[in-house]
Amino acid sequence: MSKIFIDACFGRPTPYTPVWMMRQAGRYLAEYRAVREKAGTFLDLCRNPELAAEVTLQPVEIVGVDAAILFSDILVIPLEMGMNLSFVAGEGPVFSDPIRSREDLERLRSAEETAPRLEYVYETIRLVKERLPEDKAFIGFAGAPWTLATYMIEGQGSKTYTLSKKMLYTDPELLHAILRKTTEAVKLYLARQIEAGVEAVQIFDSWAAAIEPAKYDEFSWKYMVEIAEYLKERYPHVPVILFPKGIAAFIERGWVYGNFDVFGVDWGTPMALAKEKLGDRYVLQGNMEPTRLYSKEATQECVAALANLMKEGRHIFNLGHGILPDVPVENARHFVRLAQELSRRD
Amino acid sequence: MSKIFIDACFGRPTPYTPVWMMRQAGRYLAEYRAVREKAGTFLDLCRNPELAAEVTLQPVEIVGVDAAILFSDILVIPLEMGMNLSFVAGEGPVFSDPIRSREDLERLRSAEETAPRLEYVYETIRLVKERLPEDKAFIGFAGAPWTLATYMIEGQGSKTYTLSKKMLYTDPELLHAILRKTTEAVKLYLARQIEAGVEAVQIFDSWAAAIEPAKYDEFSWKYMVEIAEYLKERYPHVPVILFPKGIAAFIERGWVYGNFDVFGVDWGTPMALAKEKLGDRYVLQGNMEPTRLYSKEATQECVAALANLMKEGRHIFNLGHGILPDVPVENARHFVRLAQELSRRD
Repeated sequence: MSKIFIDACFGRPTPYTPVWMMRQAGRYLAEYRAVREKAGTFLDLCRNPELAAEVTLQPVEIVGVDAAILFSDILVIPLEMGMNLSFVAGEGPVFSDPIRSREDLERLRSAEETAPRLEYVYETIRLVKERLPEDKAFIGFAGAPWTLATYMIEGQGSKTYTLSKKMLYTDPELLHAILRKTTEAVKLYLARQIEAGVEAVQIFDSWAAAIEPAKYDEFSWKYMVEIAEYLKERYPHVPVILFPKGIAAFIERGWVYGNFDVFGVDWGTPMALAKEKLGDRYVLQGNMEPTRLYSKEATQECVAALANLMKEGRHIFNLGHGILPDVPVENARHFVRLAQELSRRD
Repeated sequence: MSKIFIDACFGRPTPYTPVWMMRQAGRYLAEYRAVREKAGTFLDLCRNPELAAEVTLQPVEIVGVDAAILFSDILVIPLEMGMNLSFVAGEGPVFSDPIRSREDLERLRSAEETAPRLEYVYETIRLVKERLPEDKAFIGFAGAPWTLATYMIEGQGSKTYTLSKKMLYTDPELLHAILRKTTEAVKLYLARQIEAGVEAVQIFDSWAAAIEPAKYDEFSWKYMVEIAEYLKERYPHVPVILFPKGIAAFIERGWVYGNFDVFGVDWGTPMALAKEKLGDRYVLQGNMEPTRLYSKEATQECVAALANLMKEGRHIFNLGHGILPDVPVENARHFVRLAQELSRRD
């Protein structure tokens, strides 16, 4: 059976524009919070295939999205490379052993050693695959090497990324070595996700905007493209979505290239700009400002404008960043329904 | 005597391109740290004209910049409007009484009551004015209404600005009322700064990028322009600089307008884009990535590229955001000297 999400990723005609939401398996759902509590810590939930599969499936049924996205965290890669990860309440993820030198980096496991240690993710995927309605697609994901590297170097979330950027300008070889090792791990990880059953993959470069536009290709984009091309060569039937957040200027300069299928547009980039610069080459995903979900009116205004701008298709509805934890479920459902209705082509 | 910085703001020919650095009166200077310690809290320093004048003048002598910028904080406006401000170590500014309703807003003093309470700032300006070398210019500043409003609403720094943005979509009238009251206060405050002796003013919209591009004019830009035009009407000889951080997409769409003199370009916006879109109408200021200051090579690369791109002038050198606290002073001096040398036109 043909899946509307997959068709849309390849730019094939679809009866309406499919829709999903970044972080759709998350705290705004009471059902998620219940499972999360049962699981223990956030990491416990990531490493529990049965429960992770359950929360992966929740938004498909509850909110009506056209695709499920694997519940996991981008930081399982550095975790399984051997870093000591914990999630501190109110502070987010913390690595007690950040990577600041070549010796630190050498301590980490290779891609070949890392990928098999993520068996709990592959098992989650197999469980979801058994239960997902057959008209819904299943998306896997990983963090972009640059975004992973910033966490690995800073040791925690950062507003300024000073250590990572200092390394970028003062010891670019070390940064490239970290990015190289991480890139190899992401390649093998996503290949195994596909082997286990995901039907599309998205690479999140959440901290793309921390790099000045003139350096973005060298330290992030080219690695994302390398991963995409590695996957497209082996799995041409699996759409690859790249989502670099906050790089309107990079798009504007015409610097986006590579063999992948869908470009994820963040909310800071006008969809009209993305369409002008990229719409012929890539299907575009996005990009409602997530805070609009607090207001049905503001949601309606944006969905209608996007449906009109993208009426010729080559579009997947999404938010321009993750859904916020206190959005009413009813509003999320309203967004999903509206996107499906206002884009209907019959 | 004609001042090179003022001439440059008006696009007049200058022997070289002047340079200053955002946050140049700051922690990277040992002399600043010494005064800061003597003063007590950060707010104590802002409210001590003698010491505030001293740190305002330091970078002119130590680093060789072409303009001094008033040492103060954008949050003195909400403070003197009646909000309870403290600076919590490691957390930044905190208002214990955030503005979440019309009643909260009505509690705050009017612009007319607020402006005279900032006498300690005007006194700082008079002291600096007496001592500043006559070839150096003196810049006053204020926060943009939107940026001030986010602090007033959130009660503290935020990564997501959820409360402010929720208000933007669900109760725009309340947000506009907050912005209106703040706008009036900023107008009178900057007018008094000029009367006290500053020769140019910059309005910082540090959180510009928190608003989606399609809403930026309505909730921020138009208020900044209103303030600029209020000042230009009364003080046409005083250049007005607007610095909205992180709005490359807004620039790209051609949405920048208004009667002001200099557009401050942040490091996330390629100067070539700003030049294409705005260079005919505004003098451009910026925009070296501040982390480049850790490396003399990276500094050289950027200054040379900017000097070449802007060789016809209509440019003021600056960083694309504030200088970081652990940059070696020698590197800051190197940046300033290089900017002045590589732009020399004789």
